[in-house]
Amino acid sequence: MTTPTTAEIIGILGGMGPAATADFYAKLVATTPGSSDQDHLRTVIWSDPTIPDRTAALLGDGPDPTPWLLDGSRVLREAGATVIAIPCNTAHAFVPRIADHVGLPIIHMIGEVARHLTTLSPRIHTAGLLATTGTVRAGLYQEWLDRFGIRLVLPGTVSQNHEVMTAIHAVKAGIRDDRTTALLSRAAQRLTERGAQAVIAGCTEIPLGLPGDAVGVPLIDPALVLAQALVRRARTDGGVEQGR
Amino acid sequence: MTTPTTAEIIGILGGMGPAATADFYAKLVATTPGSSDQDHLRTVIWSDPTIPDRTAALLGDGPDPTPWLLDGSRVLREAGATVIAIPCNTAHAFVPRIADHVGLPIIHMIGEVARHLTTLSPRIHTAGLLATTGTVRAGLYQEWLDRFGIRLVLPGTVSQNHEVMTAIHAVKAGIRDDRTTALLSRAAQRLTERGAQAVIAGCTEIPLGLPGDAVGVPLIDPALVLAQALVRRARTDGGVEQGR
Repeated sequence: MTTPTTAEIIGILGGMGPAATADFYAKLVATTPGSSDQDHLRTVIWSDPTIPDRTAALLGDGPDPTPWLLDGSRVLREAGATVIAIPCNTAHAFVPRIADHVGLPIIHMIGEVARHLTTLSPRIHTAGLLATTGTVRAGLYQEWLDRFGIRLVLPGTVSQNHEVMTAIHAVKAGIRDDRTTALLSRAAQRLTERGAQAVIAGCTEIPLGLPGDAVGVPLIDPALVLAQALVRRARTDGGVEQGR
Repeated sequence: MTTPTTAEIIGILGGMGPAATADFYAKLVATTPGSSDQDHLRTVIWSDPTIPDRTAALLGDGPDPTPWLLDGSRVLREAGATVIAIPCNTAHAFVPRIADHVGLPIIHMIGEVARHLTTLSPRIHTAGLLATTGTVRAGLYQEWLDRFGIRLVLPGTVSQNHEVMTAIHAVKAGIRDDRTTALLSRAAQRLTERGAQAVIAGCTEIPLGLPGDAVGVPLIDPALVLAQALVRRARTDGGVEQGR
């Protein structure tokens, strides 16, 4: 009988959006070292695309997704998950509302990104953020980067509305064309011109529309950082958990 | 509150291998029509890479994966799945052992491929198969293509062992290079030279190593055919189920 290398079962609370969930799981698999199926981590994924839009909720224009997130977490826990990962930046605004009810550690994607930024060389003093308006308004990256002493630069209102959000909606609709890439590249360039030494692709749709080499500075993919944190944790026991 | 377009919850019994599971879920998402997250299908994925090797079991060299498949099916059913898809060709050899115990319909990937072949134009009389030795020996495609009156051509022993299986193991180990593609292209070409008017990429790892345009005839991706069958079923109610 095969013995798994770890008792950890990764729970992925996904569907926000579904393409980003598929991409995240592919990154988790690609990040896991091993040469056969049996070296990989057991994973359970609850992908509920019917979860109400997180940005709409944060802007007061839609229902609160918290009940859906709690339901999904319950499904994952009952399926045997030992840890939860949420590959959606905006959903992290709701993590404080669910963390005490989930009964499992949540590896905090945004906390992991902040920690990851401190490990880069040369040292990052200023980082830019491309994210949904919901994530920006909720101040998620602001809060975590502050803790690590990193300054955050954000797109202006016009760039946020007409470049970043337009591109995110295009990717969610399955469109990944040159125009989408151009919108995101331009928004990223505006951030580097204002001092960003790294740009955070702070919405799981963004890396799907913006190749890493389209930006002149490191493009940080939070999904990849989260995947690496999960693999590290399964092998040792490390990770920025909500509530620590 | 958002109303899902369907009550169907897709259950994916995966991990065989994990990269193929991620790829299958990406295909399911890409195949689903819709312009926002909320148009997509709720999905639960149990990805257990510790499931013993299916080919080894079929060749009498390893433990029977049936208990793992039953466990995973139970997890999916308890999570609310209304239908099960198994994106692993070889695992379908064990479907008859689990079908009566799962309590949910299993959409049969190989049955769907056989049915799909009958819809192609010009009509396919002969199809080739690239698959694991386990799938070939279990006669899975033979059985289903026979039902639809399609002749099956298989690689010779040397091609099967030194081209097909070598390439499958490479993809499972994360290697997707020119050599892997060359091995699979050559094996496919041997099949077309023997009359195959279409080649079935009958192991979920194969499309990851063999681009569709590397073969001079249609390359059938069973994962894509299965994804399309699930989407069709969620919108109407069709699918080749085990036991029908």
